[in-house]
Amino acid sequence: MALGKDYAGQQCALARALELVGERWTLLVVRDVFYGVRRFSDFQAHLDIPRAVLTARLSVLVDAGVLLRRRYQDSPPRDEYDLTDTGRALWPAIFALTQWALEYVPSAAGAIREFAHLPCDRVVDRTGACPACRRIAPVEELEMRPGPGILGHTRTDPVTLALRRPHRLLEPLDLSAPTARA
Amino acid sequence: MALGKDYAGQQCALARALELVGERWTLLVVRDVFYGVRRFSDFQAHLDIPRAVLTARLSVLVDAGVLLRRRYQDSPPRDEYDLTDTGRALWPAIFALTQWALEYVPSAAGAIREFAHLPCDRVVDRTGACPACRRIAPVEELEMRPGPGILGHTRTDPVTLALRRPHRLLEPLDLSAPTARA
Repeated sequence: MALGKDYAGQQCALARALELVGERWTLLVVRDVFYGVRRFSDFQAHLDIPRAVLTARLSVLVDAGVLLRRRYQDSPPRDEYDLTDTGRALWPAIFALTQWALEYVPSAAGAIREFAHLPCDRVVDRTGACPACRRIAPVEELEMRPGPGILGHTRTDPVTLALRRPHRLLEPLDLSAPTARA
Repeated sequence: MALGKDYAGQQCALARALELVGERWTLLVVRDVFYGVRRFSDFQAHLDIPRAVLTARLSVLVDAGVLLRRRYQDSPPRDEYDLTDTGRALWPAIFALTQWALEYVPSAAGAIREFAHLPCDRVVDRTGACPACRRIAPVEELEMRPGPGILGHTRTDPVTLALRRPHRLLEPLDLSAPTARA
């Protein structure tokens, strides 16, 4: 069934959010930028997303002001993507959906990633609060670390392997460093 | 482009969440159940959603354990829907997406709805915290009230009109009471 991407007649904010980030794959692309993925080929390697779909999703996100596109090489032309402030503000929604699935749609293996509040060095709870300082940890202060489910994680693309090292959110992922192979 | 609804090869919790609630319209249907909508014809009136799509979404949500289906009339057969605990746990994600759009994808009119923490009688902030008690307000303690944007809200279906009255989340919407016409 063909469905448009807008929600004509719906005037609530949730419908506006879904018009921008509710399309298939979009939130996984945004999540990857939080994880430090910046380049087209790396999104592709990590998400196995069809090329045309990835191109379309990145364009929508740039047009919506969620991502910023930067040319890092002219010949051949290559762009990289980073989150705007609007994009960074999506973290609570991405975190909440992730925590919901961890608790209510569990996989056999458990969480493949955990998020630690760096200043306190404590893993945040499912509301995103740090058990030490009790604040909701801002995304700039979070480090992603392998969780107990990492042992059952079978992907072996370079992005997945790089993400097995503790990694501060929002910082570009270093894909040249030696990778941990769990 | 035809895309399946699963994310084969993606093992993260966010992909599992999106497989269940990432389809078009699904989160708007779940949101409506939080608002007290229970019956097929009322979802349809409020969302202008094609009948076949609504049927499909409700079935997926029941199969996923997000909604519970209850027969309330046998002849002709009529069902109503309520949230399970799994479904109620989606509130933080729905709230976070809504608040994101309110702040970053603003409409001219402003928020059409606000959420107040009933025990403290204070509107929660965009993290969902009550400014009086500082707790993240549980959905069971929230009342939805018309916000400043309600004056620019042009929908006139019975569900929209009923939702213009203050209404405790999760409680069935009373569609027989006289409606406020803004």
